[in-house]
Amino acid sequence: MLVLFTDFGLQGPYIGQVEAVLQQHAPGVPVINLFSDLPPFDIQAAAYLLPACAQGFMPGTVFVCVVDPGVGGKRPGVIVRADGRWYIGPNEGLFTPLARRAKDSQCWLLPGPPASASPSFHGRDVFAPLAGRLARDGRYSGEELATTELDRPDWPDDLWRVVYIDRFGNAITGLRGSVIGPDVVFNVDGHPLQHARTFSEVDAGEAFWYENSSGLVEFAVNRGRADAVLGLRVGSEFSR
Amino acid sequence: MLVLFTDFGLQGPYIGQVEAVLQQHAPGVPVINLFSDLPPFDIQAAAYLLPACAQGFMPGTVFVCVVDPGVGGKRPGVIVRADGRWYIGPNEGLFTPLARRAKDSQCWLLPGPPASASPSFHGRDVFAPLAGRLARDGRYSGEELATTELDRPDWPDDLWRVVYIDRFGNAITGLRGSVIGPDVVFNVDGHPLQHARTFSEVDAGEAFWYENSSGLVEFAVNRGRADAVLGLRVGSEFSR
Amino acid sequence: MLVLFTDFGLQGPYIGQVEAVLQQHAPGVPVINLFSDLPPFDIQAAAYLLPACAQGFMPGTVFVCVVDPGVGGKRPGVIVRADGRWYIGPNEGLFTPLARRAKDSQCWLLPGPPASASPSFHGRDVFAPLAGRLARDGRYSGEELATTELDRPDWPDDLWRVVYIDRFGNAITGLRGSVIGPDVVFNVDGHPLQHARTFSEVDAGEAFWYENSSGLVEFAVNRGRADAVLGLRVGSEFSR
Repeated sequence: MLVLFTDFGLQGPYIGQVEAVLQQHAPGVPVINLFSDLPPFDIQAAAYLLPACAQGFMPGTVFVCVVDPGVGGKRPGVIVRADGRWYIGPNEGLFTPLARRAKDSQCWLLPGPPASASPSFHGRDVFAPLAGRLARDGRYSGEELATTELDRPDWPDDLWRVVYIDRFGNAITGLRGSVIGPDVVFNVDGHPLQHARTFSEVDAGEAFWYENSSGLVEFAVNRGRADAVLGLRVGSEFSR
Repeated sequence: MLVLFTDFGLQGPYIGQVEAVLQQHAPGVPVINLFSDLPPFDIQAAAYLLPACAQGFMPGTVFVCVVDPGVGGKRPGVIVRADGRWYIGPNEGLFTPLARRAKDSQCWLLPGPPASASPSFHGRDVFAPLAGRLARDGRYSGEELATTELDRPDWPDDLWRVVYIDRFGNAITGLRGSVIGPDVVFNVDGHPLQHARTFSEVDAGEAFWYENSSGLVEFAVNRGRADAVLGLRVGSEFSR
Repeated sequence: MLVLFTDFGLQGPYIGQVEAVLQQHAPGVPVINLFSDLPPFDIQAAAYLLPACAQGFMPGTVFVCVVDPGVGGKRPGVIVRADGRWYIGPNEGLFTPLARRAKDSQCWLLPGPPASASPSFHGRDVFAPLAGRLARDGRYSGEELATTELDRPDWPDDLWRVVYIDRFGNAITGLRGSVIGPDVVFNVDGHPLQHARTFSEVDAGEAFWYENSSGLVEFAVNRGRADAVLGLRVGSEFSR
């Protein structure tokens, strides 16, 4: 399976062009567009969403991960193999939490882009063809990197910030539910938020936090918009 | 064929995660994302869109139908077989018009969700795996329900309300064109709207009603936005 | 491969319904949704995007191209074969630049729609079934047209207008980079814009033009929104 994880947006021809290249290089392999509206240019937000969203995908799955404000510049591309899944994309920190948490990982530096590649669309011209070949072949050989080279040492293990606001106004954070307990009360813009297991456990209009279906702490309001009620946007901080 | 009919939105990882589960459980079966921006939480609007949108799909098609404000609560999941097509989702009324109109139907109560299911994402963890298996096996055995158990007896056969506003501002209603005639003049927020067969039959800027490509009465303005011109939103009522 | 190129929007059931018809008529052929938010009703904008977006697709690919304000009226449908790829859709000018630029082209007039076709959704009921058959059979026989019949002689070879604004506020134009040189300075709403190869070559906040990944001149602002900074929308003119 090939999986797209990008900030390209669903608008325009970008996702379709990448999907076409994937299909050409790996005929018959299903392509899933997992996330296409990652916060634009926000590598850190994407980095903490990636391992949460990648859970549950089968070993051998190849993720094309592109949040790439530096496209066309000198930042290198990498391939990461973590716990049996493959990830390919520009290396500006995107794979930091993923590689740190992996039980088993390996990583490779990509050669520079071919001259024919558009300098503004490495997702289509560099990463997609390689991803298609990875999905087909199930292996890669090239210049190996220490996975520590992927790491942004200044980034925390969990990010106490909002990393995504969804269609319903729910605010997903970069903090895993598994590293805190259900007794925690968060301070979100002055509002004390208590834990609930799911939406139907609280009254309509009530704000709460829960561990979402990807394992991340999420702030929500039952049948309301947490972003509006709590004044949240991508990047908003919170504390306990 | 597997078909998604949800209010998840195209944003975020939700549709992609469900598609991945469907692919894993029914490799090689095409997955169509038919509707992903149903009015949020609006079970009734979705209920009257479902039979209209399901027309034309082949017997054996499996629809994953999720508009589920009560996710994680006690509402049961069901499987409905209606006129040769399968539908799976939470039972809070969503299948009322579908089952009433079916010439031939059967229905089953799903067992409670497995402990491993996320309490906030039964679409991915409960309904999608079952849908994949249905698409593969073409049959289901379990606790049967009378289809009358699906019914919300207080809901009309046709809904004289707007159930969806599309990209162009056209307002789709829950009323089938086949139950009224082309001579009907609708009163829509004080505007008398007459029938036209299609957009090109009226002048630019003119409001009219027509039977849309799914068989439902739709209010439109040629090369304009009916929602703005007529003051319509999801839920707006109208009369004749 | 089957490719959708439309102004239907991702919202609602339209893209999904067309994809389902394509799958039914050409089982196993991959379907790519290349562009679904073309500027609504704007045939000319779509016409200059089409050859740029179609580059790179394999010979034999079938494009379903629908921007069709005249749907249900008397405008004819056509099939175009240009440089080995197939295009099907309503003929109101959409194929003008494509056919003019093709080294090798042929075109056919479609018969009128079948009585069963919805007058408002020829994309689903007329063009998709034919496209599916084309993808399967790789040939078409019917009433041939001179490709000059597709032409809107009043339309220029390149369009000095904005034809699309993307998610990031970048403004794509109908002008090919290959017909001008990198020394050109464009006058965009009074701003002189110079060439850069890609985003990372200019400072954050700086406006520039570049040849985008589809070969078109595009106005952009590094880590900013060109549409806002330069006051651009679809249809905006510019000069050198």
